[in-house]
Amino acid sequence: MEKFESIANLAWEWLEDIAQCSQTSRPDTEGVTRLCASKEHAHANEKLKTWMSLSGMQVRLDNAANLIGRYQSSNPNAKTLIFGSHQDTVPNGGKYDGILGVILPIALIHHFHQKEIELPFHIDVIAFSDEEGTRFQSTLLGSKAIAGTFDPAVLEAQDINGISMRDALTSFGCKPELIHHDAYDKASVIGFVELHIEQGPQLEQANLPVGIVTAITGIERHTLSITGKAGHAGTVPMNLRQDALVGASQIIHMFDQLCKREDDLVGVVGKITNLPNGVNVIPQQTDITIELRSPNDESRIAARQELLENIEKLLTQYNLTYKHKQTYEQPAVTCSNSLSSALTEAVSLAGIKPTHLFSGAGHDGLAVCELTDIAMLFMRCTDGISHHPDEAILREDLMAAAEVLNHFCLNMKEE
Amino acid sequence: MEKFESIANLAWEWLEDIAQCSQTSRPDTEGVTRLCASKEHAHANEKLKTWMSLSGMQVRLDNAANLIGRYQSSNPNAKTLIFGSHQDTVPNGGKYDGILGVILPIALIHHFHQKEIELPFHIDVIAFSDEEGTRFQSTLLGSKAIAGTFDPAVLEAQDINGISMRDALTSFGCKPELIHHDAYDKASVIGFVELHIEQGPQLEQANLPVGIVTAITGIERHTLSITGKAGHAGTVPMNLRQDALVGASQIIHMFDQLCKREDDLVGVVGKITNLPNGVNVIPQQTDITIELRSPNDESRIAARQELLENIEKLLTQYNLTYKHKQTYEQPAVTCSNSLSSALTEAVSLAGIKPTHLFSGAGHDGLAVCELTDIAMLFMRCTDGISHHPDEAILREDLMAAAEVLNHFCLNMKEE
Repeated sequence: MEKFESIANLAWEWLEDIAQCSQTSRPDTEGVTRLCASKEHAHANEKLKTWMSLSGMQVRLDNAANLIGRYQSSNPNAKTLIFGSHQDTVPNGGKYDGILGVILPIALIHHFHQKEIELPFHIDVIAFSDEEGTRFQSTLLGSKAIAGTFDPAVLEAQDINGISMRDALTSFGCKPELIHHDAYDKASVIGFVELHIEQGPQLEQANLPVGIVTAITGIERHTLSITGKAGHAGTVPMNLRQDALVGASQIIHMFDQLCKREDDLVGVVGKITNLPNGVNVIPQQTDITIELRSPNDESRIAARQELLENIEKLLTQYNLTYKHKQTYEQPAVTCSNSLSSALTEAVSLAGIKPTHLFSGAGHDGLAVCELTDIAMLFMRCTDGISHHPDEAILREDLMAAAEVLNHFCLNMKEE
Repeated sequence: MEKFESIANLAWEWLEDIAQCSQTSRPDTEGVTRLCASKEHAHANEKLKTWMSLSGMQVRLDNAANLIGRYQSSNPNAKTLIFGSHQDTVPNGGKYDGILGVILPIALIHHFHQKEIELPFHIDVIAFSDEEGTRFQSTLLGSKAIAGTFDPAVLEAQDINGISMRDALTSFGCKPELIHHDAYDKASVIGFVELHIEQGPQLEQANLPVGIVTAITGIERHTLSITGKAGHAGTVPMNLRQDALVGASQIIHMFDQLCKREDDLVGVVGKITNLPNGVNVIPQQTDITIELRSPNDESRIAARQELLENIEKLLTQYNLTYKHKQTYEQPAVTCSNSLSSALTEAVSLAGIKPTHLFSGAGHDGLAVCELTDIAMLFMRCTDGISHHPDEAILREDLMAAAEVLNHFCLNMKEE
């Protein structure tokens, strides 16, 4: 176990160090803000390049500002196993979201390099330039580039200072017009494995350091605008009211019950606007957003149908009219059976009870799945908190994750 | 019937005329804005004074800016029956809210005067200076003054231009320091009868021109702040969520059902604030207002107890915490049995089916009840609309109301 402790300690040290590459001056209390193609990104890449080199890796920057380190196999027919995650953060985000999935694989390879462990495949560790979309409001720049699905039109997206993604990448030393050359050759890749903090409370509740992800959730969003009739809150009898907020409350309750009924659904009404919103006026119009997620597209679509039927039924019953619009849809991405089975075996070998869960948040795998099989290992985070300065992990969980990834790599056969 | 038609026509003409005493230039489309002790108020009082004088009444302005016209009896022991309502409006209010209860009694007395009808009691018609509280945010100035319950501290209240009620009344020709002299002697008063538009839809639904008010509603208000736990809308499983908006929706539904169950309750959640109110964030905190009204204080208090027990039960069930505060309470005022019976008889004599309803809104009677017995006659208004430029009445309903008040006065014995 000593070797995993030293890998974990090294990763811990690097994670603390790279958190300083942030627009904030006190990452521990203010969180980390590190945007794509910023000077903080350049600073982070400098550190990563140093640690990759120290770990015996060849390092390159691609034209989408992804930093890629390769631990080269001497096998002449070697394919490539890709590890990685994103280097960027949300504003005032945590110290682990994304970057953990870059740092721990490098620390593991540092161990392989020291012990002169040879593998029959190359390992690439990628620090994706942008997954959160914080700077240009356009997500998955890095992972779409390596998957060959990047849309060059996105290069015109501008940050809040009016700087285009194209200019930002150019200043960063990239040639954005050549991004399409950065796609990996499908035949050369074994698969993509991302280590990421869970960003939820399930592993903590189960008292487990890691879990195997079955799928990355599909997401759909709706807006519902409910119209009733404003009126004096004293003079209109209850049976003549058309109270939009009463209708909305029925929808919120019904949707909550629907999502609670099925294991593979989560849903939320996150946003509500009520008019005229006066203490003594019957609500005239209530607008809500509805978001529904599932790792199973069939479940999600069935739930949507039930949702829409219930909306029609309930609001008619309350003598209310409504406008409904579906505003977004992203299908689920299923993790590879073979890679996930290999992860499960590695978890067992590490003496941890394998548990499977789905990812309710989006990840780089949503793009990389167009290139190759994907798998994800979730690591426990304290109180399920993420996207917040309080985001935290346990050092012992880093050890567990290191052991799992070690077994995974050593058991992997070249396909 | 011809005489009631001519009374109604006169009242209609006066109502149209006095609607011009407004800050707005087009009362038909912009509504009427007439504030206490304003130049529009002075203008309206000039007109009322002319019409009162024309109707054989003696006119005076009291120190609270109430305009009072007396139709004097020759009976040496005569007591006084008071009619009246408020002359002021909400901003962009209607042409009938308040002023109807001043104008129609004057038009009726105009008829008495012409026909030389003598009564064994005086009739005072009062145009109360302020009931809405639009200018100084303090209601019932006029009716509190005649009831002897006016609090002189309110004289320091300021309008949006920083003018105090004291200065406004002084400029209007009043001596506000003498308001306490304006209280009627209780022994001299028979009762107070207010004609007012219903401001709700019940008479229209029942196809009746007028209805007898049983009580003026009691009102209580509460604020409820519900606290859950914010979280990522994808990564927190449904069974671990503490969604404040889901809890609020349960309270809104429960309260609506509770008020619908009882005939003498109305209630509304008019205002809702949700934080952080993001499409993909589990609501952390949801604040709502709860307003409950009943003409029966016992019913209201029983409903409040049930409401508070249900809040505790439901929010505990949803693993949410909350802060509750009762912010307001105004007990109900019951209308006098004897005056209401006399009104009921008068309604029957006019060939109208007597119907009884409670007032869900507050009125001058809330203050005058401290002086004397009160009664109210509601008149139908179109679509139940009030406090709006679209406020409307039917000319035939003015005839019906005139006939009812005529019978009421002629049948009234001096007590």
